[in-house]
Amino acid sequence: MRNFTFHNPTKIVFGKGTLAELKNLIPEDRRILMMTGGGSIRKNGVHDQVMEALKGRTVIEFSGIDPNPEYEKCMDAMRLAKKEKADFLLSVGGGSVLDAAKFTAAALKFKGGDPWDILEKGAAVAEAPPVGCVLTLPATGSESNGNAVISRRATGQKLAFSSIHVFPQFSILDPATTVTLSERQTANGIVDAFVHVMEQYMTYDVNAPLQDRQAEAVLLTLIEEAPKIKEDPLNYETRANLMWCATQALNTMIGCGVPQDWTTHIIGHEITALHGLDHARTLAIVLPAVFRHQRDQKGKKLVQYARRVWGIEHRDDERTLEAGIRKTEEFFRSVGLPTRLKDYHIPLESCLPAAKAIASRNPKIGEHGDIGRKEIEAILKLAE
Amino acid sequence: MRNFTFHNPTKIVFGKGTLAELKNLIPEDRRILMMTGGGSIRKNGVHDQVMEALKGRTVIEFSGIDPNPEYEKCMDAMRLAKKEKADFLLSVGGGSVLDAAKFTAAALKFKGGDPWDILEKGAAVAEAPPVGCVLTLPATGSESNGNAVISRRATGQKLAFSSIHVFPQFSILDPATTVTLSERQTANGIVDAFVHVMEQYMTYDVNAPLQDRQAEAVLLTLIEEAPKIKEDPLNYETRANLMWCATQALNTMIGCGVPQDWTTHIIGHEITALHGLDHARTLAIVLPAVFRHQRDQKGKKLVQYARRVWGIEHRDDERTLEAGIRKTEEFFRSVGLPTRLKDYHIPLESCLPAAKAIASRNPKIGEHGDIGRKEIEAILKLAE
Repeated sequence: MRNFTFHNPTKIVFGKGTLAELKNLIPEDRRILMMTGGGSIRKNGVHDQVMEALKGRTVIEFSGIDPNPEYEKCMDAMRLAKKEKADFLLSVGGGSVLDAAKFTAAALKFKGGDPWDILEKGAAVAEAPPVGCVLTLPATGSESNGNAVISRRATGQKLAFSSIHVFPQFSILDPATTVTLSERQTANGIVDAFVHVMEQYMTYDVNAPLQDRQAEAVLLTLIEEAPKIKEDPLNYETRANLMWCATQALNTMIGCGVPQDWTTHIIGHEITALHGLDHARTLAIVLPAVFRHQRDQKGKKLVQYARRVWGIEHRDDERTLEAGIRKTEEFFRSVGLPTRLKDYHIPLESCLPAAKAIASRNPKIGEHGDIGRKEIEAILKLAE
Repeated sequence: MRNFTFHNPTKIVFGKGTLAELKNLIPEDRRILMMTGGGSIRKNGVHDQVMEALKGRTVIEFSGIDPNPEYEKCMDAMRLAKKEKADFLLSVGGGSVLDAAKFTAAALKFKGGDPWDILEKGAAVAEAPPVGCVLTLPATGSESNGNAVISRRATGQKLAFSSIHVFPQFSILDPATTVTLSERQTANGIVDAFVHVMEQYMTYDVNAPLQDRQAEAVLLTLIEEAPKIKEDPLNYETRANLMWCATQALNTMIGCGVPQDWTTHIIGHEITALHGLDHARTLAIVLPAVFRHQRDQKGKKLVQYARRVWGIEHRDDERTLEAGIRKTEEFFRSVGLPTRLKDYHIPLESCLPAAKAIASRNPKIGEHGDIGRKEIEAILKLAE
């Protein structure tokens, strides 16, 4: 395997009834900016539980953060935090709210001029006030990493940054808060976690057998639990297993010492920016196309995946590999996510500008750095 | 799965040449108490590399820490640290040296009287100076947890403690430093890691499928890599895989939300205290006996283990389960560790006092709390 550094200081507090722990996790003298999303936490009781746990504390609310959180919204939050002298950011919601909180925290202490530079120019984040998380939607893994993705509709951009300073100090994961998620949110979360694993696993062999098996462990569990949650959405145990899978998919452990891809995410972000399609849905479209386009480069690992995860045992590697990709597509469709642009009535032509946009911003992408504008166009054609 | 808290703040720096990172990991103004073992680090170049990285720093050396580190030795280290006003403890060596450093750190700031109370009475550790680690022997997992085991020959005791304050701030893991380990040290490390996984995995089902597969991932990789290292002890890649397995076996991740056993360790510690037998060798003797004694309680998981880890597929569960235990014994013997007391010429009678000693100190042990003096005697008989 390759050399690596692994550092994940987030404290995970997992299980039923753990929201009450909030009062012990934030020091009493902190002024808390509490960031929330569209209002579901007011319907499912989470808001009440949080306010109960924080009774007597200074809590300033900032609500209305949407999926694919917007830069300007974070700037509003930053201004409110400054005005109110907030020194603790608490995210209550899903990965989008948490990403907004992370970026707001980084922007608050940013001394290099325009905070947008953190996203566009990779300007360094030197410090940030602590961020805490109450997670209500398992999907992004943001609850246990230092990454955030922020969008700017004005320019059609969706960009990521990463810093050790925005790892949540704690994340409270109570699976009971997720039983009221819609089938669509649940399905999106499953596919998001699945593809996070794939970006770190489906590359080439560097003799890292433990990381391979840890990745396969998450994939196999997602595949096993997905039909159960469709059958019985209120099942706490299944919700708990899905929630823990999503965290493990992107707490950066399975990516230690191995090459990573992230082509599917980079292309998917563009499709979301262009068409507003759910993040996970773009992944379900792009991933199989990336696999087919890169079948030579990813061949050995695709065969291993087909055998170990799907139990496919053709003698012929080519057939095994293709069967593995088909099983992946069937899996996405089985949870409710179609796998082609046309299934969402998105014309191929409308996506092709994504190829140019990505190529203009990045050197060639993928684990071999061999995917440029032409290749992205070819991948999009395979996804039509 | 059960509720749990997971918090592992240790920064892992892994790979060839990473010892040079030391200079960036310890602040320049720190007075470093450097704790080491029996001298192998002076032969294999590790000592030179560490001193080179710390050139110009204040380094006070304390050497001679033996396997099963001794309480009195830690007290000597503590007195030296106080005298020299050391404010950073650096362990250079294996898990024993690191455990000694952790306990010395805890003792340094202990305000509750005799530091032995931390081990014997579970007295709380409220603070400790930072501990850093350069690991040269993969086995105990101590490089990525807050546990330490300390012995007191005067009283024949071997006791553990655990605290968030003694997680190493960083652990440098350079597999190249492990290629000079003896076959015995290597084999002990493999079995130690294997049994750490077992203590967290071989219990009963609580619907935690991801944790099961993560545990199996480590077991399968250890089984795959063990014969390779016997064949080619100088192979960096294999050393790297074994080193990462040992860390993952006890960084507390696979134990999240599941019942744990630790019977094998508790009995093994007594055999080491009585006979000075290597820790891992005691585990190789006790584990199969615990499995046979608890076959009813552990039956379902033993069958799963036999099937998934060893690929055994009898129709009959009893035969599957027994075949899995036999495969485990064969594995231990294949790396060079016999699995019976008599293989080490240890008479059964000489071990029976262990049962009384354990029972006098603990409530009944094991994941069901059903193992007392009589049961420990029966386990020892099965291990004869």
